[in-house]
Amino acid sequence: MKEELLSCHEKIKPFIHRTPVMNSRLLNEISGADIYFKCENFQRMGAFKMRGAAHAIANLSEEEKARGVVTHSSGNFAQGVSLAAQSQGVKAYIVMPSNAPEVKKAAVRAYDGEIIICPPTIEDREANAQKVVDEKGATFLHPSNNTDVILGQGTAALELLEDHPDLEYILTPVGGGGLVAGSALAAHFFGDNCKCIGGEPMEADDAWRSLQSGKIEKNETSNTIADGLRTHLGHLNFPIIQQYVEEIIRVDEDEIIEAMKLIWERMKIIIEPSCAVPFAALLREKEKFAGKKVGIVLSGGNVDLAKLPF
Amino acid sequence: MKEELLSCHEKIKPFIHRTPVMNSRLLNEISGADIYFKCENFQRMGAFKMRGAAHAIANLSEEEKARGVVTHSSGNFAQGVSLAAQSQGVKAYIVMPSNAPEVKKAAVRAYDGEIIICPPTIEDREANAQKVVDEKGATFLHPSNNTDVILGQGTAALELLEDHPDLEYILTPVGGGGLVAGSALAAHFFGDNCKCIGGEPMEADDAWRSLQSGKIEKNETSNTIADGLRTHLGHLNFPIIQQYVEEIIRVDEDEIIEAMKLIWERMKIIIEPSCAVPFAALLREKEKFAGKKVGIVLSGGNVDLAKLPF
Repeated sequence: MKEELLSCHEKIKPFIHRTPVMNSRLLNEISGADIYFKCENFQRMGAFKMRGAAHAIANLSEEEKARGVVTHSSGNFAQGVSLAAQSQGVKAYIVMPSNAPEVKKAAVRAYDGEIIICPPTIEDREANAQKVVDEKGATFLHPSNNTDVILGQGTAALELLEDHPDLEYILTPVGGGGLVAGSALAAHFFGDNCKCIGGEPMEADDAWRSLQSGKIEKNETSNTIADGLRTHLGHLNFPIIQQYVEEIIRVDEDEIIEAMKLIWERMKIIIEPSCAVPFAALLREKEKFAGKKVGIVLSGGNVDLAKLPF
Repeated sequence: MKEELLSCHEKIKPFIHRTPVMNSRLLNEISGADIYFKCENFQRMGAFKMRGAAHAIANLSEEEKARGVVTHSSGNFAQGVSLAAQSQGVKAYIVMPSNAPEVKKAAVRAYDGEIIICPPTIEDREANAQKVVDEKGATFLHPSNNTDVILGQGTAALELLEDHPDLEYILTPVGGGGLVAGSALAAHFFGDNCKCIGGEPMEADDAWRSLQSGKIEKNETSNTIADGLRTHLGHLNFPIIQQYVEEIIRVDEDEIIEAMKLIWERMKIIIEPSCAVPFAALLREKEKFAGKKVGIVLSGGNVDLAKLPF
């Protein structure tokens, strides 16, 4: 996958920002580690999802591009697909549940995505997306279980390793598994014995359980503030995670909120709750990371300012 | 003052961050200008005040350094003096009103500042600071009406012009006048016909009125969310402002909050309300800045997350 990652990066460069890497003397003091934060909250549309979406669309044939793309999402992937499609002159259909926040719909519309409203069940979402595939010939894009998407998400860690080749760890959140799988590939092929570790909420620890059981587990409930991490792994990213991810560290809700607050207050940047999970994992296992050079992918910054946990 | 600015910058470099300059496609679209934000919210202790404090302390004699420095402040200058003094091995005494928030006191203590609590009137603050001068021989540092401080604050604009020599405007907030005066000097001596404009709340428009009347005016009331901008100008910075500041644009409270929210939501960075005032001024007078290359000094990022205006 080494060549594929490099070629993916070249393909998406016109459509993404090369995001900055920040560090913080204060957070290094608090954690005992030497941390390099890859600021995907500053990515176009505010999250790393732009990378995978841009790659999946760039790899379509001209015929496929002419017929458009479709996804179902009420989160960052909806915006990522809309903006990535707009940037490449492709039509995007976004299936959204009827209870999706108005602000999320407005963001999709601002990027020229066509919204299809459906009842708020996963079955309805999938059925409506399939309908667009059948009727329009659009290509369905899965937010995490798609090899092009996995490679695209891996380019954030690739850039981080270009800037800091001697990182000993790269930490990312684990939701659907696209980001952690792509980052693990980047760490394996471009790091110098760099290990990739995932952070996951206790309240939605399906990936941790999946690594234990050897099969894809789901969450019965997912009562976590890290709303981007409630989904489960897929058959394309799970084998990569099994092979290349060192471990998954689980964290409590109060640890997530505390980590988020530290980053807001000390680094003066806005990150989503999901995004605070790997830093929370580092703080939970300080001894492991003491004195180590650690990269953390800050995955996104799209929060509702009216609903902050502090 | 050209040489003084350059020499000031060299002196303080070991004690400050060279802060990044950010721009935002979305905010450029919304405003119609081409804006370069100088991120002093990422400065050490979270605000530009570090620059002036570091310079004033660096210029003390060894005897003066040995006797320490004193200021009265419950805001960013208290933290700036404490950290700048700590960095240069100097003792800092900080007179704070008894009603200062605990979080501000904790920040000063974290930088080894010695806090002297006094009743919350300006007379008490000045008397207590004078007592430290008399008893300890410490040097009093005024947060804005001090030539070394003015020059120090001007180095943010100096760096901005080093990065973007073709800026047509530099905008800063106007509080006590140190930042806007220093920035105007930098624009005059290092810009290519670059004009410096101040942004000020309607609710505390003493500087705007001072430019009208030709003498230093004060505020009867200062009912603004921009709590860093409630103070009035001083006899050292006012003549500089008269000579080198192009104009002062006043903004309403709702314009400040809207500008602050835009920067938080679109740029994903945390800024203080005071810091949003120049961007609010630009949005208020869009025609003036349409198509222009504008630098804005984002002055600081120390906010109480529990008390946001949105």
